[in-house]
Parts: sequence; structure tokens; C-alpha cells
Amino acid sequence: MAGENRMPVTVIGLGAMGQALAGAFLDAGHPTTVWNRSAHKADALVARGAVRAGTPAEAVRAGGLVVVCVVDYAASQAILGPLAAELAGRVLVNLTSDTPERAREAAAWAAEHGIDYLDGAIMVPVPVIGSPQALLFYSGPREVFEAQEATLRALGGNSRYLGADHGVAPLYDLALLGLFYSSMAAMLHSLALVGADKVTAKEFLPYIKEFLALLPAIADQVADGIDNRDYPGDLGNLAMEAAGVDHILEASETRGLDSEPLAAVRALMGRAIAQGHGGDGFASVIEVLERPSV
Amino acid sequence: MAGENRMPVTVIGLGAMGQALAGAFLDAGHPTTVWNRSAHKADALVARGAVRAGTPAEAVRAGGLVVVCVVDYAASQAILGPLAAELAGRVLVNLTSDTPERAREAAAWAAEHGIDYLDGAIMVPVPVIGSPQALLFYSGPREVFEAQEATLRALGGNSRYLGADHGVAPLYDLALLGLFYSSMAAMLHSLALVGADKVTAKEFLPYIKEFLALLPAIADQVADGIDNRDYPGDLGNLAMEAAGVDHILEASETRGLDSEPLAAVRALMGRAIAQGHGGDGFASVIEVLERPSV
Repeated sequence: MAGENRMPVTVIGLGAMGQALAGAFLDAGHPTTVWNRSAHKADALVARGAVRAGTPAEAVRAGGLVVVCVVDYAASQAILGPLAAELAGRVLVNLTSDTPERAREAAAWAAEHGIDYLDGAIMVPVPVIGSPQALLFYSGPREVFEAQEATLRALGGNSRYLGADHGVAPLYDLALLGLFYSSMAAMLHSLALVGADKVTAKEFLPYIKEFLALLPAIADQVADGIDNRDYPGDLGNLAMEAAGVDHILEASETRGLDSEPLAAVRALMGRAIAQGHGGDGFASVIEVLERPSV
Repeated sequence: MAGENRMPVTVIGLGAMGQALAGAFLDAGHPTTVWNRSAHKADALVARGAVRAGTPAEAVRAGGLVVVCVVDYAASQAILGPLAAELAGRVLVNLTSDTPERAREAAAWAAEHGIDYLDGAIMVPVPVIGSPQALLFYSGPREVFEAQEATLRALGGNSRYLGADHGVAPLYDLALLGLFYSSMAAMLHSLALVGADKVTAKEFLPYIKEFLALLPAIADQVADGIDNRDYPGDLGNLAMEAAGVDHILEASETRGLDSEPLAAVRALMGRAIAQGHGGDGFASVIEVLERPSV
């Protein structure tokens, strides 16, 4: 594709994700400059037309839009910190995954140095980058996002602007990842439980999928209850549900499985019951989750 | 509906679920006899045409099919234990939720006394009982299930026979409930995390639902890997994912949230990494989950 009219971009950090980001910019016809501490990681991109910068400063000077994707914010600030003067007047988009607090610190640093700054979070695996359905979150000044939106869409068609607070994109990222890893661990526990009685994952999978399909509708009810601090127990109350969880823990122990994550859920349920939520629905657990006993 | 040709049935245990089961039999035109320790719980059913038995023995004698739904197997055996003679030659369907081990013990007891026995698990909340989509699991002798299938369909149109081992219905029940409660607790944690930064559950819900919709496809990949003991890390490996979970735990701690369930997931990940799975996918966690260190 002809890149004459496209914004020159820079990608710093060429792990698997950074390489995919740079590749997506190349595919969209952007003059793309790349830098990575281990220079050889740029080889494939250079073969596709990218320019390999010798230093991060050289990389930054080549792009109007600078995208950073490294291991964490300590790493990104180690690279970017000395380059405040080069970055001033350019747009910096940090797609490194870290906490909202570190994103806000980085935003304060950027503001201090006149750098237009967006924080982003990549919500899809490497092979999905660049596709229309690739979901990425962005937060920071709306006008900065809107000016870069067309360029950023090269990375993923499903780009969402979440608000001016730079911490929101990483906050949403972490909240969804937590749900993901906990659900995945629970799925593994379920497969281990039936597996102990010689049921294969393939056999049990249809039931898991059928059950997972029910969760979005239940999420609707839960969300209503939480915003209203009202947890109706008419479809099942915590006291009964705790008895059910005890059976799961007992059956897991009989089969020699590690059930620590579920035992921790049971402990939360027990604390909620102790605080008077025994007749309430499961969502009332959020009350103790927000106020740890320790 | 005319009940002349319908099998007389008995329902023992009239909590909210037992009442729904008896009501579904009445709706389907079955002569229905009920018993509960607190007799008044039968009032509404009697008004709809059910017969209130004075004793469990009287209740059992009135039905060709006897359904039991009480708090656990200790409670069901306390009621049924003395009635082996009355139950002999009848079909007993125990819908009480408990462990596979207790279901198998109950089945051994039933076999000893010439009682045709099915163990069942109710996978839907009370209001769904009796509807075409209501999912119930059954296990036990196939010929017993097939003879009762038409009658049991009154309780739920989506009845599934899982196999001869009486423990299978409760096993599937517990495995799915474990996934359910863990996922629900994780959803509450996510909502608490964003809520701490003033994002309402209603605002965040669309993202949760969009993310949950991805899980079934991921479950397919996970199941393949587990059955083959092969956990490709090409879309994300445990070492990287553990760094992400650390960020979630840190952001949760900053916000004063209880993160014990996720911390327990992180501990499993750490053990898997220590055992050499750092470059493998998340599903490799099942290896340590099946072999607790304690």
C-alpha cells in the first residue's frame, strides 16, 4: 500500500505483541520505524519495509505517533524518561499492561513535558491484532484520541475510547483479565473434578459451554443488584449456596485436587453470611469483598 | 388436566424447590402426594389438588415414583432409611444435592433393598422448573431412567441421562456449580475493582458480557489441550500471564479489596511455573491443580 499520505509511526518494544502492532501499521501503509533492545527482533519487520532505529531517540524522532509496548511501566519509563524533549509535541500511546496507578503517574509525567499521551490496553491475543474485531481500550484526552483514531484503527477495528482518566483503560483491562483468569482456573478445576472420575474434557465440554452461555443473563441481574445495593435471595440464597460449595470442596478433596481458589470463595461467602447476608443472593458477597477482614 | 392415566407420584421435601417439583407434577396431571416435616408447607399444593400424607411411609405408599428433594443426603437417608420395605418395587429419584460419593452409597443401599434408584441434579433455579428448557441430570440404570423419562419430563423438558454410575449426575452438578460460583465471585471482584474508581456495574456490564461471550470458544481450545496433556503457549504463556495477575492483585490491594480467590489462582500459576510450565499456556495449571503440594 502507498504510504505517502499516512502518518509516520514508531513502535518501541518488539516482543510478539509489539511485532504484531508494527506489522499492522505496515499493512495499513504507515511509514513505520521500530526499536527494540535486542535489535534482531526487528529483522522480519525490516524485511517488510520497517526502518530499524539505532536508538530510542532516533525512533521517536521518526514518528508523529509513538506506540510503546514493553513488559511493564518500569521498562517503558526507563526507555522514555530520558526522551521527554524528543517526545514533546508528539503523541505517545502506551500499550504496556500495568496498573491504573502507574498509567496515571506516566500521564502526569507526560503532561509535565508537553507530551500528548494516551494509555491503552490490548484485549486480544497477538494473531487478532490488526483485524476489524480486535478490541483495544484507550483513555486520555478525548481530542488526542480523536485525532489519532483513524491511525490507531490499524491496530484493531474495535477501538474504544473510555474517558479522560488515563487509568480507566488499564483498570478495565485488569478487571476483565481477573475475570478471565479466575474463570479459566475454575474451568480447569471442573475438568479436573470430572476427570478424576474418568470423564474426558471433550465429554464434559458441552456442559461447560452450555453453562457459560447462561452467565451473561445472570450478569445483568447481578449488576442491577450491585448498583442498588440490593441482593434478592429468591432464586437462591447464600446459606444454601454455601452448603453446595461445601459439597464441591468435599468432592474435590476426596479426589486429591487443589481447591484453594474455591475455598477462598467459600470463605468470602462465610463472612457475608456472618454479616447477615445468609438469606441474600450471591451478589451480596461484594459487600465483604470490598471490606476485607484482614 | 385429567390425571386418570398418569402415574401417581410422591414428592418428599417441600422447600421452594420441592414445592416447584410437586407443582410441576400437578400441572402435568399426575396424582401427587406430598410430605414435609413442617406440614404447612404443603398448604398451597393441597389447594391445587395434591394429597398431604401424614407420614413419609404413607407418602411413599401413594406413589409409583417417589421424588426426594431435601437439604442433603443425611436428611434424605434419615427419612428414607426406615422405609426400605415400602420403597421396594418402586422407583426412587433423589434430587437432593450432595457429593457423588453419597449418591453412590445411597445407590448401594437402594440396590440392597430392591429399590429402583436414580440420582438426579437440578441445574436451574426454582421458577424454571417444569419448563421445556429446564435442565436436569439423571444417572443410574438406563432402563429405570427410560421407563420414567416421560414422567420426569414434567419436571423439566431438558432432562439428560448421563450414565449408569449414580455418582455422575452429582459429579456434573458439582463441577458446573464450582465453575458458576467461582465465575460469579470473579465477576463481583471485577465490579468491585472498577467500582472503587467510581465505575458503576451498569457501565461496566457490557464489557463483562462481551468478555464472557469469548469463553466458550476458549473452552474448546482448553479441552483439546487437557485431553492431550499439551498446553501450547503461543497465544500467551503462564510467565507473562502471572505478571498480569500480579498487576490485578496490586491494583486490588491499592483499592482495599479482598483478592484471596485470585491470589489462590496466582499461587497455582506460580507452582505450575516452578514445575516448568512458564512457557506453556494457562491450561497447564491443571497439572498442579491435580497434584496439590500440601
